[in-house]
Amino acid sequence: MSCYQLLKKSTQSAARRGILSTAHGDIQTPNFMPVGTQGTVKTLHPNELVDLDAQVILGNTYHLFLRPTMDVLQTFGGLHQFMQWDRPILTDSGGFQVFSLAKIRKITPEGVWFNNHLNGERMLLSPETSLDIQATIGSDIAMIFDECPPYPCERSYAEKSTQLTTDWAVRCKNWIEANQPQAGSFGIQSQKTNQNNSIKQLHFGIVQGSIYADLREKSAKDLVNLNFDGYAIGGVSVGEPEEEMMKAVDHSIPFLPEDKVRYAMGLGTPTQLLEMVSKGVDIFDCVMPTRLARHGVAFTVDGPINIKKQTFTHDMGPLCPEIQDSHTSQFSRAYIRHLFRTSEPLAARLLSYHNLNFYLTLMRNARTHIEAGTFEIYKQEFTARYNQVQ
Amino acid sequence: MSCYQLLKKSTQSAARRGILSTAHGDIQTPNFMPVGTQGTVKTLHPNELVDLDAQVILGNTYHLFLRPTMDVLQTFGGLHQFMQWDRPILTDSGGFQVFSLAKIRKITPEGVWFNNHLNGERMLLSPETSLDIQATIGSDIAMIFDECPPYPCERSYAEKSTQLTTDWAVRCKNWIEANQPQAGSFGIQSQKTNQNNSIKQLHFGIVQGSIYADLREKSAKDLVNLNFDGYAIGGVSVGEPEEEMMKAVDHSIPFLPEDKVRYAMGLGTPTQLLEMVSKGVDIFDCVMPTRLARHGVAFTVDGPINIKKQTFTHDMGPLCPEIQDSHTSQFSRAYIRHLFRTSEPLAARLLSYHNLNFYLTLMRNARTHIEAGTFEIYKQEFTARYNQVQ
Repeated sequence: MSCYQLLKKSTQSAARRGILSTAHGDIQTPNFMPVGTQGTVKTLHPNELVDLDAQVILGNTYHLFLRPTMDVLQTFGGLHQFMQWDRPILTDSGGFQVFSLAKIRKITPEGVWFNNHLNGERMLLSPETSLDIQATIGSDIAMIFDECPPYPCERSYAEKSTQLTTDWAVRCKNWIEANQPQAGSFGIQSQKTNQNNSIKQLHFGIVQGSIYADLREKSAKDLVNLNFDGYAIGGVSVGEPEEEMMKAVDHSIPFLPEDKVRYAMGLGTPTQLLEMVSKGVDIFDCVMPTRLARHGVAFTVDGPINIKKQTFTHDMGPLCPEIQDSHTSQFSRAYIRHLFRTSEPLAARLLSYHNLNFYLTLMRNARTHIEAGTFEIYKQEFTARYNQVQ
Repeated sequence: MSCYQLLKKSTQSAARRGILSTAHGDIQTPNFMPVGTQGTVKTLHPNELVDLDAQVILGNTYHLFLRPTMDVLQTFGGLHQFMQWDRPILTDSGGFQVFSLAKIRKITPEGVWFNNHLNGERMLLSPETSLDIQATIGSDIAMIFDECPPYPCERSYAEKSTQLTTDWAVRCKNWIEANQPQAGSFGIQSQKTNQNNSIKQLHFGIVQGSIYADLREKSAKDLVNLNFDGYAIGGVSVGEPEEEMMKAVDHSIPFLPEDKVRYAMGLGTPTQLLEMVSKGVDIFDCVMPTRLARHGVAFTVDGPINIKKQTFTHDMGPLCPEIQDSHTSQFSRAYIRHLFRTSEPLAARLLSYHNLNFYLTLMRNARTHIEAGTFEIYKQEFTARYNQVQ
């Protein structure tokens, strides 16, 4: 039985409303996952994420493997207990970080050999070790180890890479069948199950294929044959134009089953998220709300603003009058600008909180409007106002 | 009538228990003021300071004058509204920062000419401008402009400097009489008064005199003659040995009135604070709890610990089992160590919160024990355990 329950489809688009059940609770879709790379969503307290009703966060396998190390997470019985977060966690496979951070790396059929970016130590990340690490982290959703090709990517490279991703997915499937529920040679003790004792760690396959429609189709079909708990669309948000990003989704979605969750990795802007929801994507993760926050950018319904600008020097209004909360809305734009100009840590805190509230509210509104049958109107109105030049 | 009500004196020492009434509420003494240099206590949200029952915070006149500037604070009607803090604020005179931060400065009878450390602009800080700025900030307690001599300090310099502080205090008194309650040519509108409409901005004189007992006595008497609302002991915590710091207090306290509050500026360790309370000091401010927090030091009843040490790698216990709160105590030492090692902003947040809780709890316990007549025993037991080598 699938862990994803489809509650409703929009009558005007592929937009969907559903529930993904995990060992640490349900995730309503469409939804957004704040990024907690190293076991913390930057600047925020876990209680604040609960206030914001974040239903799931993302942890990065590569980073957690290096620090605090599996040895420490083993002591705590997993990341939930270590970081004091009792809701669902999704972990990536670690592959993407190896490609982007490790100084020297070599892709072989066995896996990826790399020198880690902290102390240069030579390590192997393979389909099996990635899953073993994720089992030790004790995430509710583990991602299958894949190769994420760069953009642009030659056809010949994309063909080989997509086949490698499929081969690795087969090895992952074998590992899961051999190891679950005893998973985690690093010593995981927290294969927490839900009240019915029926939900173990879930595993999502990742559709690759770069910009090539037939490769996307083949990748999706190969993975679906392996019967994962959900499917991600990978190889997006790697520098391609928005048009290519949308096409990658269009070329993948038709071959994914209705009763499994779809996850578009590492994106995007608020309007991109709504467009993706229209196309039938269920969950998202992106560093944008928290990373831009640390650079002084606040999301508003009239588009992003840079709070450091001189124009806000005397501005007594809140960041965004339409997105209120009890944590940031009492502060003026002028005060938050002052905090940024004086490099005060509270600055990034307030903007991170606000921006995540913006993204999570966007997803909550999407759910409400799908339910009410008004999602396409909502998307159009939101997008028109967001993109309007002030 | 004095704004300070002495409730009780310890039977075993000069320790006192009282209430200082200000326009934004009462401060129970003995008490500690978290330092909010630039209109924020570093890393913390004002709501968290309320959770910690911080009854008063300190703002730095020099910093606030440069940023956000008086122009901005004028728009907001003062710092309380700007930073969303509705409890008392004490501001220093700005003099100390001019001495420590400004690159070029020249002390003249008129005041201190300096080039500000941000853009080098030449400025004058004088007794009158200092009070004018503090009136615009709208602090509940303003400090009289003084010269804080360095340590060590020659007798001849100390004599001249102490006289200058007295001369400036006279000019301050004249300015207050001429300007209050219309104070603040920068445009203050927030000379908030209490419900009885009787409390304006309070002004505290600062006793100087370096290490010279007779100069401390003269300085104290000169200031008391001017009849300020409270008295600070300045020129301490400027690099002198602890013994000299204690002597400076011993040489000043006997000449200060019982019914006015006494404030020891810019110190100190937890055990120093208890010792000062014994000597009859009522309020304190110090960057130590928040600054050390940002360097990974946590206060515990067994003395400070550096959470970055390897010994805490697998430590599942809280920072200090004896000082519990709902904000930090759920996290292990191992987790907080991990946050520091990975430069995560939550690290300094958690330790700042904990350390301020430690200081504020210390003062709360002091009040309870003075009330119960057991303060000296409490001080001795706390100090013995805190100083014991582990």
